[in-house]
Amino acid sequence: MFYTIDILGTIAFTISGVLMAMNKKMDLFGILIIGFVTAVGGGTLRDMLIGNTPVGWMQDITYTYVIIASAVFAIVLRKQINYLRTSLFLFDTIGIGLYTVVGIEKGLNAELHPIICIALGTMTASFGGVIRDILCNEIPVIFRKEIYATPCILGGVIYFLLIQFPIQENLVFVIAGVTVIITRLLAVKFKIALPTVYTESQGL
Amino acid sequence: MFYTIDILGTIAFTISGVLMAMNKKMDLFGILIIGFVTAVGGGTLRDMLIGNTPVGWMQDITYTYVIIASAVFAIVLRKQINYLRTSLFLFDTIGIGLYTVVGIEKGLNAELHPIICIALGTMTASFGGVIRDILCNEIPVIFRKEIYATPCILGGVIYFLLIQFPIQENLVFVIAGVTVIITRLLAVKFKIALPTVYTESQGL
Amino acid sequence: MFYTIDILGTIAFTISGVLMAMNKKMDLFGILIIGFVTAVGGGTLRDMLIGNTPVGWMQDITYTYVIIASAVFAIVLRKQINYLRTSLFLFDTIGIGLYTVVGIEKGLNAELHPIICIALGTMTASFGGVIRDILCNEIPVIFRKEIYATPCILGGVIYFLLIQFPIQENLVFVIAGVTVIITRLLAVKFKIALPTVYTESQGL
Repeated sequence: MFYTIDILGTIAFTISGVLMAMNKKMDLFGILIIGFVTAVGGGTLRDMLIGNTPVGWMQDITYTYVIIASAVFAIVLRKQINYLRTSLFLFDTIGIGLYTVVGIEKGLNAELHPIICIALGTMTASFGGVIRDILCNEIPVIFRKEIYATPCILGGVIYFLLIQFPIQENLVFVIAGVTVIITRLLAVKFKIALPTVYTESQGL
Repeated sequence: MFYTIDILGTIAFTISGVLMAMNKKMDLFGILIIGFVTAVGGGTLRDMLIGNTPVGWMQDITYTYVIIASAVFAIVLRKQINYLRTSLFLFDTIGIGLYTVVGIEKGLNAELHPIICIALGTMTASFGGVIRDILCNEIPVIFRKEIYATPCILGGVIYFLLIQFPIQENLVFVIAGVTVIITRLLAVKFKIALPTVYTESQGL
Repeated sequence: MFYTIDILGTIAFTISGVLMAMNKKMDLFGILIIGFVTAVGGGTLRDMLIGNTPVGWMQDITYTYVIIASAVFAIVLRKQINYLRTSLFLFDTIGIGLYTVVGIEKGLNAELHPIICIALGTMTASFGGVIRDILCNEIPVIFRKEIYATPCILGGVIYFLLIQFPIQENLVFVIAGVTVIITRLLAVKFKIALPTVYTESQGL
């Protein structure tokens, strides 16, 4: 089941990359690469940071097939894709929930501090979008209009609270992932965002 | 002989980085770094992704000397460099052919799937240019006007077709590399490019 | 003592990231991440390049605490922070001196060539600022107005000159670090900068 969710997340992330690349008038190759990087970027950075190489997507060719198929799908149906907006947003949100918990578990396997594990989970869920924005020459949306990281961090905190208790690991996994998903859905529905702190200071 | 080609590719890549950095009015240090990153960026990313560390250019100081010498050469002769345009384009193209095949072989050594190997080859050949463009605050040219990746992918496909047959490995290496070079020369000569797929959609 | 200096450098780097992120109207999460990346980016790239994983900041949670505390401090006191400008510049400069020597020693431990070690030292000291600028969608300041790299390179050269002689290693460490600091203070005081080499050439 986790594998299915992972694939759904990969599809949603790929399509979000493809849509932005098309807005930037990239060619077919550029669109494919941006889709790919959006889907695997978070896990790739995580794996490079903890030394888990060759990085994940290189070891299971399924991801590559799913990403290529999703990109072709999004390019062909680019005019109809608006009708799928809600489904894609759900896939994306579910993917973020799963990626967060996967990242946390990779950190635990490497015997890292809980705070570092939560950072790895958040990174897995959100860095694909960051690198998508950098490649498209935008300030990453996650730094301006936060709808990604807070739910991931909250889910991570829940994860580490729960594993203090004698609860089955799979259940902890699910509860933490669902926390990410619900928090994000609520944040988007009620347009909750972190405040910005603007200053005229000119830096150091 | 491969080593000589590698050095010629390094020279051409360095100079292409130096020229863009001078256009961006960078200082001498910035120019040198952009030249360096353009030359070694692709192989560096590949080595980090497959865990082949310390990355390649750290293990053979020759590359560093060649890059510094090429950068100094390009800075001093910046007004005459237009006359070398054709030679540099040829070096660049030959370098791309070689880098593609080198990347594929590194992937094979790490026992990765053929598609992943082709991706590594393409990355080795093209990521230096991508990171050059990001550091210069441009949308990478490879995503907009594709003259790099398609030849690399085609050369990679040829490589894996040929190794099915009882052909000497060196010959496969050369044929695949030459495929990259000829395809790219033809694409540039006849101004062949991948289509863009523009859409007004606002992303997810 | 080295640890104390390291922490002072981390504080100064974090605050320089936080100030730039506030200028870019990022939200609280974005500000924190930019502060974090500015503080640890150089060491992280170095560790990934030489295969020293999990990377440094993941193995000592103190850095994370210091960075969060510094970011909160800078956000709360954003209007008063101008009064601390001189202290912060001193911390930053001392941090650069220390980071340079730390990077060189990591390179020596990996048995790399002296020139590569100096490059690693310079990278440790300056790459955090580069990635801060990329994330904020600016051409990295280090490539335009050089006040970072030259002192680091000079300090590195001094380091390798001194270890030829029978001098205690700690002393070499201190002299090289102080060289970086003094060179940078002098460069800033007397507004010394590397020349730019502008050209109308359109690249390759």
